[in-house]
Amino acid sequence: METVLTSATKSVRIGPDHPFVVIGERINPTGRKLLAAEMAAGNYDRVRKDALAQVAAGAVVLDVNAGIPLADEPAILAEAIRIVQSITDVPLCIDSSVIKALESGLAAYQGKPLLNSVTGEDERLEAVLPLVAKYRCAVIGISNDETGISEDPAVRFAIAKKIVDRAESFGIPREDVLIDPLAMPIGAVRTAGQSVFTIVRRCREELGVNTCCGASNISFGLPGRPQLNGAFVAMAIAAGMSCAITNPLDAEIKTMIMAGDALMGHDENCANWLKYARALQAAEAPAAPAVAAAKPEGGRDVEAERAAREARRAARRGG
Amino acid sequence: METVLTSATKSVRIGPDHPFVVIGERINPTGRKLLAAEMAAGNYDRVRKDALAQVAAGAVVLDVNAGIPLADEPAILAEAIRIVQSITDVPLCIDSSVIKALESGLAAYQGKPLLNSVTGEDERLEAVLPLVAKYRCAVIGISNDETGISEDPAVRFAIAKKIVDRAESFGIPREDVLIDPLAMPIGAVRTAGQSVFTIVRRCREELGVNTCCGASNISFGLPGRPQLNGAFVAMAIAAGMSCAITNPLDAEIKTMIMAGDALMGHDENCANWLKYARALQAAEAPAAPAVAAAKPEGGRDVEAERAAREARRAARRGG
Repeated sequence: METVLTSATKSVRIGPDHPFVVIGERINPTGRKLLAAEMAAGNYDRVRKDALAQVAAGAVVLDVNAGIPLADEPAILAEAIRIVQSITDVPLCIDSSVIKALESGLAAYQGKPLLNSVTGEDERLEAVLPLVAKYRCAVIGISNDETGISEDPAVRFAIAKKIVDRAESFGIPREDVLIDPLAMPIGAVRTAGQSVFTIVRRCREELGVNTCCGASNISFGLPGRPQLNGAFVAMAIAAGMSCAITNPLDAEIKTMIMAGDALMGHDENCANWLKYARALQAAEAPAAPAVAAAKPEGGRDVEAERAAREARRAARRGG
Repeated sequence: METVLTSATKSVRIGPDHPFVVIGERINPTGRKLLAAEMAAGNYDRVRKDALAQVAAGAVVLDVNAGIPLADEPAILAEAIRIVQSITDVPLCIDSSVIKALESGLAAYQGKPLLNSVTGEDERLEAVLPLVAKYRCAVIGISNDETGISEDPAVRFAIAKKIVDRAESFGIPREDVLIDPLAMPIGAVRTAGQSVFTIVRRCREELGVNTCCGASNISFGLPGRPQLNGAFVAMAIAAGMSCAITNPLDAEIKTMIMAGDALMGHDENCANWLKYARALQAAEAPAAPAVAAAKPEGGRDVEAERAAREARRAARRGG
């Protein structure tokens, strides 16, 4: 149960035994008028900037969407993909609701990308899955169909199963299907959080597939969204979710993902958490130089080892 | 699967269909020299203050511990319990490692308390369970035994099962046993978080009992403890934990518990979250009067209803 994505030079593994994968969501003109206008005019400066900033903040995959009304989406998406691949080495998630744009993005891509997305609607399955099979990529399957989004997690799980089964009939292995359980706003649907956790668990235990979802729809319409989104991501990680399309520059979500990795045992000696928490503390105490929090990437992390020793002693004493 | 605790006038229900229960941990002289000296001298002012502050911050049960070296623990614990019960109406958790103190606390208590604790050690089981049966209270069963604390969650689960079985042999129903899965520091034991989540799930699914644990040992020895503790609590809630002995005055933990309740569907119309998040926002923006965040307890929460309507509309549009 491991989904592998690649760029020309790098591979990313998604699954229950790996750190949580953040798919950066920022390269998307939906609701971003300036970005939309620039991309339509062939100006990709902001795309480049968003790509680099998200990778620096910890995104290991980048979503690229070019859904701009009245624009030539297939051409713009392909160009955006070429540009992002020329300046970063992370695998991409090719995101469109237009089949021709997905195909044009796939043709332009170097490596094995993630295709975003197919639903459980027969027409979409028949249009998208042949592309997934042809390009041997991975795909996000969203658990809704012709009847809409059910509030019943059992119905959504059944759609997930349908997508996985249909994919297999096209020769697509189940490790290349990631199910999006669809997070609805808890302000509208009281059971929305529980439904996601249930579907995530069932996908993992009964279908043996990975799951992936957005991290912010859950809090739509409510105050305190960063805290709710952060709690949601931590809880989804505990339920077994292995990646999310989200903004790694959002501090609350980023913190909960880093903590979630440490708490799931996916951060050896808590070395990543130690670096991150010290950088947080340095940021909160502006007098201290932030550089003190950074460690040489390849070097021994003496402080991490010391803290681990201390904690081990404490555990022997009974904490 | 519902544990009911009572004071003279109030009952608290613990279980998967109820909001998460915070057991306030502050009334404990361990590591608090001043409190220890005062309690030993018969001064309970700080005990009163800690009781009221924790209840105001959302504790619905209070832990009371009087473990002071060389002091008359049974007498002090009983007096502390009488005093706390005279100024609050929340049920209490009677906390001692000394059998005579547990017994004296039980005799002084009005209602059905939670006894903290018994382990899987035969000697402790034979000493504590008769008290639980006699006073018809509930008890926390800690998943260690004569051999210590195993790092293997299967061994700790087997001890949990032993405690539940032994309790039943004393006529104690399983809904009156809460298992503490024992959170070890992740800085020392990489799998410590996963072990807790696994034991919590197995206790719920295989034993049909509730679980409970401390929220801060998990982060011992590491920086960024509030964030790690907060993530841990949210994840434990997702795994099915129904209460924790913790400090409700700790903002990060409190926020994650409030968010956890909303995300588990235990907060109708997200009304508690709306109040809480607005109070948070008011606290962050000192210009705005904090009182604007408070709503009359019994009154209609017009803003909550409005936000819920908005979110419902968004969900119909597809979020």
